[in-house]
Amino acid sequence: MSEFDLITRYFSQKFPKRDDVILGIGDDAALCTIPSDMQLAIAIDTLVEGIHFPNMTRPEDIGYKALAVNLSDMAAMGANPAWMTLVLTCPETNDVWLSKFSQGLRELAEIHNVSLIGGDTTAGPLTITVQITGFIPPNTALTRSGAQVGDGIFVTGTLGDAGLGLAALQKKVVLPHPVQQFVESRLHRPTPRLHEGQALRGIGSSAIDISDGLVADLEHILTASGVGASLQLERLPLSRALRDYLSLESAWNFALGSGDDYELCFTVPPSQEDALKNALSADAYTRIGTIESHHGLRCRDHNGRIFIPKQQGYQHFVKLKVSPRKPRSRSR
Amino acid sequence: MSEFDLITRYFSQKFPKRDDVILGIGDDAALCTIPSDMQLAIAIDTLVEGIHFPNMTRPEDIGYKALAVNLSDMAAMGANPAWMTLVLTCPETNDVWLSKFSQGLRELAEIHNVSLIGGDTTAGPLTITVQITGFIPPNTALTRSGAQVGDGIFVTGTLGDAGLGLAALQKKVVLPHPVQQFVESRLHRPTPRLHEGQALRGIGSSAIDISDGLVADLEHILTASGVGASLQLERLPLSRALRDYLSLESAWNFALGSGDDYELCFTVPPSQEDALKNALSADAYTRIGTIESHHGLRCRDHNGRIFIPKQQGYQHFVKLKVSPRKPRSRSR
Repeated sequence: MSEFDLITRYFSQKFPKRDDVILGIGDDAALCTIPSDMQLAIAIDTLVEGIHFPNMTRPEDIGYKALAVNLSDMAAMGANPAWMTLVLTCPETNDVWLSKFSQGLRELAEIHNVSLIGGDTTAGPLTITVQITGFIPPNTALTRSGAQVGDGIFVTGTLGDAGLGLAALQKKVVLPHPVQQFVESRLHRPTPRLHEGQALRGIGSSAIDISDGLVADLEHILTASGVGASLQLERLPLSRALRDYLSLESAWNFALGSGDDYELCFTVPPSQEDALKNALSADAYTRIGTIESHHGLRCRDHNGRIFIPKQQGYQHFVKLKVSPRKPRSRSR
Repeated sequence: MSEFDLITRYFSQKFPKRDDVILGIGDDAALCTIPSDMQLAIAIDTLVEGIHFPNMTRPEDIGYKALAVNLSDMAAMGANPAWMTLVLTCPETNDVWLSKFSQGLRELAEIHNVSLIGGDTTAGPLTITVQITGFIPPNTALTRSGAQVGDGIFVTGTLGDAGLGLAALQKKVVLPHPVQQFVESRLHRPTPRLHEGQALRGIGSSAIDISDGLVADLEHILTASGVGASLQLERLPLSRALRDYLSLESAWNFALGSGDDYELCFTVPPSQEDALKNALSADAYTRIGTIESHHGLRCRDHNGRIFIPKQQGYQHFVKLKVSPRKPRSRSR
């Protein structure tokens, strides 16, 4: 089977069809229609083997994660994803690998009704780039720059699971099989918090998805918003995996510093806390701290003492997401 | 200077600012507004060193070409480009290289008022992916599938220059310096035919940009449209470089088979030929053949004899552009 046939087989077909895709894969460009009175949200993220996912990760997990991290960017803006393009660089054409990769990609695409509208393939070290385009009503996007003094700081889900999953794969910790399965699943198949992000439109003052670790990503909000913050460590939402198999201090370090959880970190002004309670169920999020005027981020233990996280979020690769421009129209 | 600073310096700033970009580089996603009653055209193309451009190509030319090939896709649809995202994979962070690369990219972005709204950087073999998004009025896009029997086949510019440029770089031909400069410029800095593509809206029945060679790319139109064609070789538009330094047969082979010219190949029904004359100046395009019902592509010399091109367009990499779906709404 030629590469041409493989791509036709695995990528041209089988992905969700959307009515707003007038012309998909197969021409010089895709053509799409957009709902009136919507803005576009556009994000792009690249995964490189050995850096963004461990060598020997299953191809279906790579496909799943490549889309998940981009959907997570949509979630962090509060946007509804619609279409993706894919650039796949792989060392060789492998029927089995491509089949499984596209299956994992498609699995998540089907959940969120995302069409594959174009892409490119090249030969080289395994690298996957997905660009995603979505919609968002004007003036409702959750940016990084809207946090204000007094806002509560919240996160979705639990933190540090993906980091523990990586540590387990690297044989740094030994876990019972079901626990290892749970944390590996959190590493390989993060859940993009699209429902939560969309529910926060008009309620959250800022948001970011946690890819590099809570401390590193929250600091992007603090820098972009020109504020500081305190976190209360005993409030960090920890899964049973972290609570049962790590010391409290190690669990905090994973929750604060390890990346790849793809939970949302967001801020909400006191005036919107009732709206938050109505928008999301109480078990979907946890308040972990408060925005303060004093710059910098302070993590305090239950005695109010400062805790210095051991493992600060790592800069696996610097993204072109470094110099926020203030949006011209804002929700608040 | 950290990589963070480099990227801020070279990519966050200095690119054209557009009023429709509400939030550019620096958040989880970019936010853009779209004109009412416009459709989106989305294309993505990757350039890999040693495959899509020769090793040792100047970084400013790599930056220029990475955008040019994507703008060429917009041209082939008849779309107006608006925003790009960039994924840059390079072996090391190099201040001089990044500066020159971004300069070349910016040079072409400024000509066509294209904003850089996001991206990603990774370490690895030199690879550049640009995704471009543009606008097009509904039902005016030039697809590959609209050619009909009797339509004229046309190309913009001259063909084979980029191939001769590559041959000169590879020391396969020796050219006087000014001629070498011309053909190298055609290779490294192709001109995306945006004006021509936009002028052909409502006039052309199909279009494609010539990246893999005239024969290979025209065959995409023939396959997508379910038709065949004859070309008259003496009509192929050849630059003085090809006419003066290559035998006629070699010149034909370059014009038919070498890629990277990024001229447009398009078809026009007889009923629209007057409109074509009004839309484009006579020296902007050349009629080279006719769409026929008999499948396949026949190249004939001035005696009407069949000429078999030596160098068929090469499949440098298979793109995800392989299975055209008929557009649901069409210009004709």
